[in-house]
Amino acid sequence: MTQAFDIKGDLLIGADSTGDNRTVRAINPATGENMEPAFAVASVADVDRACDLAAAALDTYRSVSLEARAVFLETIAANILEIGDQLLERAHAETGLPLARLTGERGRTVGQLRLFASVVRAGEWLDLRVDPALPERQPLPRPDLRLRQIPLGPVAVFGASNFPLAFSVAGGDTASALAAGCPVVVKGHLAHPGTGELVGRAIRAAVSSCGLPEGVFSLVTGANETGAALVKNPHIKAVGFTGSRAGGLALAAIAAARPEPIPVYAEMSSVNPVYLLPAALAARAEALGKAFVGSLTMGAGQFCTNPGLMFAVDGPDLDTFIAAATGTLTESVPAPMLTPGIHAAYDKGVAAFAGNEAVKTVAHGKAADGANRSPAIFFETDAEHFMADESLGNEVFGAASLLVHCKDVAQMVTIAEKLEGQLTATLHLDPADHDDARKLLPVLERKVGRILANGWPTGVEVSHAMVHGGPFPATSDSRTTSVGTMAIRRYLRPVSYQDLPDGLLPPELSNDGVKTLPHLLDGVRAGK
Amino acid sequence: MTQAFDIKGDLLIGADSTGDNRTVRAINPATGENMEPAFAVASVADVDRACDLAAAALDTYRSVSLEARAVFLETIAANILEIGDQLLERAHAETGLPLARLTGERGRTVGQLRLFASVVRAGEWLDLRVDPALPERQPLPRPDLRLRQIPLGPVAVFGASNFPLAFSVAGGDTASALAAGCPVVVKGHLAHPGTGELVGRAIRAAVSSCGLPEGVFSLVTGANETGAALVKNPHIKAVGFTGSRAGGLALAAIAAARPEPIPVYAEMSSVNPVYLLPAALAARAEALGKAFVGSLTMGAGQFCTNPGLMFAVDGPDLDTFIAAATGTLTESVPAPMLTPGIHAAYDKGVAAFAGNEAVKTVAHGKAADGANRSPAIFFETDAEHFMADESLGNEVFGAASLLVHCKDVAQMVTIAEKLEGQLTATLHLDPADHDDARKLLPVLERKVGRILANGWPTGVEVSHAMVHGGPFPATSDSRTTSVGTMAIRRYLRPVSYQDLPDGLLPPELSNDGVKTLPHLLDGVRAGK
Repeated sequence: MTQAFDIKGDLLIGADSTGDNRTVRAINPATGENMEPAFAVASVADVDRACDLAAAALDTYRSVSLEARAVFLETIAANILEIGDQLLERAHAETGLPLARLTGERGRTVGQLRLFASVVRAGEWLDLRVDPALPERQPLPRPDLRLRQIPLGPVAVFGASNFPLAFSVAGGDTASALAAGCPVVVKGHLAHPGTGELVGRAIRAAVSSCGLPEGVFSLVTGANETGAALVKNPHIKAVGFTGSRAGGLALAAIAAARPEPIPVYAEMSSVNPVYLLPAALAARAEALGKAFVGSLTMGAGQFCTNPGLMFAVDGPDLDTFIAAATGTLTESVPAPMLTPGIHAAYDKGVAAFAGNEAVKTVAHGKAADGANRSPAIFFETDAEHFMADESLGNEVFGAASLLVHCKDVAQMVTIAEKLEGQLTATLHLDPADHDDARKLLPVLERKVGRILANGWPTGVEVSHAMVHGGPFPATSDSRTTSVGTMAIRRYLRPVSYQDLPDGLLPPELSNDGVKTLPHLLDGVRAGK
Repeated sequence: MTQAFDIKGDLLIGADSTGDNRTVRAINPATGENMEPAFAVASVADVDRACDLAAAALDTYRSVSLEARAVFLETIAANILEIGDQLLERAHAETGLPLARLTGERGRTVGQLRLFASVVRAGEWLDLRVDPALPERQPLPRPDLRLRQIPLGPVAVFGASNFPLAFSVAGGDTASALAAGCPVVVKGHLAHPGTGELVGRAIRAAVSSCGLPEGVFSLVTGANETGAALVKNPHIKAVGFTGSRAGGLALAAIAAARPEPIPVYAEMSSVNPVYLLPAALAARAEALGKAFVGSLTMGAGQFCTNPGLMFAVDGPDLDTFIAAATGTLTESVPAPMLTPGIHAAYDKGVAAFAGNEAVKTVAHGKAADGANRSPAIFFETDAEHFMADESLGNEVFGAASLLVHCKDVAQMVTIAEKLEGQLTATLHLDPADHDDARKLLPVLERKVGRILANGWPTGVEVSHAMVHGGPFPATSDSRTTSVGTMAIRRYLRPVSYQDLPDGLLPPELSNDGVKTLPHLLDGVRAGK
């Protein structure tokens, strides 16, 4: 199998390994050096070929049995593990992320694929509904109506720079789209093209060994032009994206301008407000200060859920928190960031805060020693200045955070009403804070996708009750999540069948088939 | 109660009956005459006031008990019935629709509200999920995660001209949005402002008697400017619309250009292809021809699901069908259309088909006798011309239909691949047609929201398994339905709660509350 998983710089278009324009190289961010080999950049013709194959594969792929689809997802997981250390080492070299983190991320990636396999088998996602015919009903008879969810069609996936495994070629978007029955064309990220090719080959091997049509998966690596061609292709029916606000909005604009507009699920921008409520702060200011820095600096702060904004009431407990955070942060050693571009954007964002007269630098980490590194940094301002300057709510992707000094909890609530949409909000609270929390919670619920108590937003569980989403600009579609089993819904739409003969119904809606699966019978839960 | 239900030409902004610019009158389309009274046209300030009230009502309304919300919906239904014949007579005068049809539509409207009350109580829509904490899990513990759906926020509803009760002020969009916990601001349709005001007063009386905040419902009547101001208002978080493609696309463009883009559920344009498969046509060509005309001319053809496009294989059976349809159609008497504008658009659309060299007029109804009436009409063309001219797929809203003569079923499949998205597709088939149907079904599934066998697409059941939706341009969001209980999902988004103390969880997710409601426990169905 080693041969199959070489990194050759190829585009993977269906079963074809190809690509002419071999002009792009990965950069090792820890050293700034270019890496071998050169990677092909997909042309519009390459993209269109991948999309043609995806469209040709759709009807076959979407009609395989649930079991066959689940086995396919599990085979991808097994193949990824089979690549072995080569995958972790390449990802480490391409991203600067530590091997231990990447080992964990591989586990998450594989676990995510297996979880979606279990979801496919369980069949809740089919959303089956049967309203039996009522031929005697007055004034009009009711026909037999049956409903299921079907896949939207071929899906374009744009992987994230900061999760080279769990949110990239075989990440959450791909896993949920394949689980839904959608062929996937991945626009490979130039930040980790070799990692992407290895994983792409693992998926392709699964397509082949499971006897599925080649167009179920393609990988077209490239930059903005490649991505734009992919979103414009008429066969593509939905887009999954994790990245910057500018990138997500650009794809959404392309998708909206198509003759047939399509949904774009872009997970974009969030500063993840953290509220240190008074009693919790009084009880454990020092521990909170240290834990905050741990969450802030993890993975060089390169998480969508990084705690970039904090609110607390002025006073000696907050001083203790600040002192503890300062002590810990001052000792922190900067890690390489994912790409030179992300590093430059971090420095620019930090400079904007540092140059803002309303902002004071509380503390920062040790000076950088090596390429693409910058110190973590902790700013502060007060509520009046925060409310007067919208730019203070901007995300700086990386280990930067802003503490907003408030007069009281009422001021926190006032500011919360003005916040943009966020992925998360966090409350640190004790029982004596519950009344204050009850003032904040209804507001925060309207602003975020996930509310945490006494934890830190970094660390996103892949499970059934997870929402990694939230109102704009956290995402482009607050009705969805990109992490967790509910992510499958993004790639489905309902179809109703009226009076179709049993032999023509989809197997899961036939009289026999529906009994084996969960469904609503006349609105009442029934079936397996 | 009679006093409360007078038609005064008022805007209903929360509890306030108001409006300065009383310049608009309903037109009786059957006579072309203006009706009393003059109606106020909402200004931008009126719209903004309604939206401010809606935003102020949101947190209170969304946190009332499921039972209280259900009772509110049932009270609206009771109040609508209480208006009595005044409602039917006014709707008849404003729309030209027969009293019998309007009586049925009132029943559907009231039934829809009651159905959503039962949906609210059953709680499936809350989509509750609990993933209990796993404190001992390695390498990391799992937090307690719980998920529910919450309302998106205040919703703007644009009623349809063709359902003055069932898809207007208290129609399917309003009922599903209120069921989801969203305050509603209705942009009243100028085609039936008196009907709208009566129903609006019925809703407002329910808001008051149920002790809900006044902003839960407002009615702002007006034209395009009123609607644009409503969609632009930052408090509005989603839009429900039924109407023309141009109208839907205009609202979608406004919504996408907002600083915070919002979802628009526009049900727009569909020609609802009907396939007469060979064995069915051989068995009952004459009956099919007569039934087709019945579906075509019902309600002067003013249904989203009107059969505007038919496909059949040439031959003597098709000749029989055509002869039967012709015989029936020739005897049909035109009914008044809903508005002078709709009537003019029908005449223009018919003229475009009649003037197309590739199209032949098969038959038409009797000449018009009275205002705003035109004969129903049945055109034909052949497959080659249909494929060569995209305009032949355009909707003519009204009783016009185009028969496409095909060489064989393979040609039907080829054409089906080229069709735009549709609300419905219908197959007339016998067992001997099943193999042909299997070739069409996978293609049609990708094009439509509902597939019917041996029926007619007009007549849309309000139930759990109904999909009144479909790919663009049938709707702006194929993932949804505007009819049936699943319509509630349009106005919801998920929120996840991580490690929240039991006392701070929403009641339905607390340890005690969740046991009384259906939920997924670690992905497995549990609860009531």
